[in-house]
Amino acid sequence: MDNPVGIFDSGIGGLTVVKEVIKLLPHENLVYFGDTARVPYGIKSKETIIKFSLENTLFLLQQDVKMIVIACNTSSSLALPIIRRHFKIPIIGVIMPGAKEAVYATKNKKVGVIGTRATINSGAYEEEIKRLDAGIKVFSQACPMFVPIVEEGWINDAITTKVAEKYLSVLKSKGIDTLILGCTHYPLLKNKIQQVMGKAVKLIDSAEQVAIEVKQVLSQEGVLNKERSRPSREYFVSDEVAIFKNVAKSFLGNELKEVKRVSNV
Amino acid sequence: MDNPVGIFDSGIGGLTVVKEVIKLLPHENLVYFGDTARVPYGIKSKETIIKFSLENTLFLLQQDVKMIVIACNTSSSLALPIIRRHFKIPIIGVIMPGAKEAVYATKNKKVGVIGTRATINSGAYEEEIKRLDAGIKVFSQACPMFVPIVEEGWINDAITTKVAEKYLSVLKSKGIDTLILGCTHYPLLKNKIQQVMGKAVKLIDSAEQVAIEVKQVLSQEGVLNKERSRPSREYFVSDEVAIFKNVAKSFLGNELKEVKRVSNV
Repeated sequence: MDNPVGIFDSGIGGLTVVKEVIKLLPHENLVYFGDTARVPYGIKSKETIIKFSLENTLFLLQQDVKMIVIACNTSSSLALPIIRRHFKIPIIGVIMPGAKEAVYATKNKKVGVIGTRATINSGAYEEEIKRLDAGIKVFSQACPMFVPIVEEGWINDAITTKVAEKYLSVLKSKGIDTLILGCTHYPLLKNKIQQVMGKAVKLIDSAEQVAIEVKQVLSQEGVLNKERSRPSREYFVSDEVAIFKNVAKSFLGNELKEVKRVSNV
Repeated sequence: MDNPVGIFDSGIGGLTVVKEVIKLLPHENLVYFGDTARVPYGIKSKETIIKFSLENTLFLLQQDVKMIVIACNTSSSLALPIIRRHFKIPIIGVIMPGAKEAVYATKNKKVGVIGTRATINSGAYEEEIKRLDAGIKVFSQACPMFVPIVEEGWINDAITTKVAEKYLSVLKSKGIDTLILGCTHYPLLKNKIQQVMGKAVKLIDSAEQVAIEVKQVLSQEGVLNKERSRPSREYFVSDEVAIFKNVAKSFLGNELKEVKRVSNV
């Protein structure tokens, strides 16, 4: 019961999911792993993404986690179906919760999806949305520059508006009323994206929905943590701790005290 | 003598060095390794860059190379001094040749350096330039968005001009007459950078100088290839071959026929 929930991401973006899980399930113990030595995943091949994701899963299993959340859209799109096949504990990704919320939100049945090149090429969101409602039209756009922009801290820069306009103009012309932010970095560009798409378009950030999914799974499995002691939250990265800590604040809203570096992946 | 020259890079940028080596030493056999599964290095820590660079070196040694060129500025800045200590064959990087050329080129003794964050933070170019001429003033600027811009293919985009202006305006105000392009991706943005800096500023792309250095080393060691048979050129990458091949053309000028994927790093 008091085993931790394991969450991994290619780097730092998964902290947006951590934040929502802590909010909804404040008593759960957590272990986070960010693969900062091999980040980003979104420009790499399916085979490589699966290999890295399997290694991250094995690392979390060594921490005795009771379930795993793949808090990375690229990894969820390409590796989740394969990883799920191998392991006994429940493993969820971020695609299904995001797709579900978009299907619920859209009124004109035109949904947009933005993400890394690997996520968009996988067609994972489109597939999931169509499975829920075959009548919905899905329009996708890879936005490879958004991640480096967030990591460079150009959240409010005029250049970012230009980049957003370049990527989003086609989606805008399709008349979508709902847009899935299919990468955990993108919520940090929410204001810019909203400004370019217009106020009428609903932006879907799956982190909140993922937290709800975590609660449902733990509850179904009967492994919600009933203890009310102070929960433990451990953070591991594969590259330098200082680099991770510096950026973590903008994702998590507060500073991380202890982060450990591991070299076993 | 007919052992190959080994060249490695974090990804694809090192092909600019390959191109110049082929031009100057058309009879040498070559082995290239691009660590595309773990690219980029420039946002990572010194310890991680050293680990990856050592692994790449070991891979090339297994291919029986007679010398190694670290065709990556980040790796040359941070790992070269350590790697050199361990191995018997000559190993050169791209920093010294670039610094040498800049010292030779500057008239007003004000030199600029641009590169990844890791390269700039290392201070490697500044150190090398000061060693050659302590009277030269060096001004440095990290340009983290330039690599994703090149990989996105936005070579002639108006956004790229804006990004270049943002990064280079401070360097321009210092009155430098020479600017080192301290990352193998940057020569592809030469036109934009020249446009922003003005025609009077000499841009230093170290690839050509590196090729000269390779010839000197092989000659000193007495291992220049005297055979005039058709040279072999082998290309290895750690991620998918197709992704690498697609971008290789813009760096090398012609298509690569055979590229092999290796998973031993």
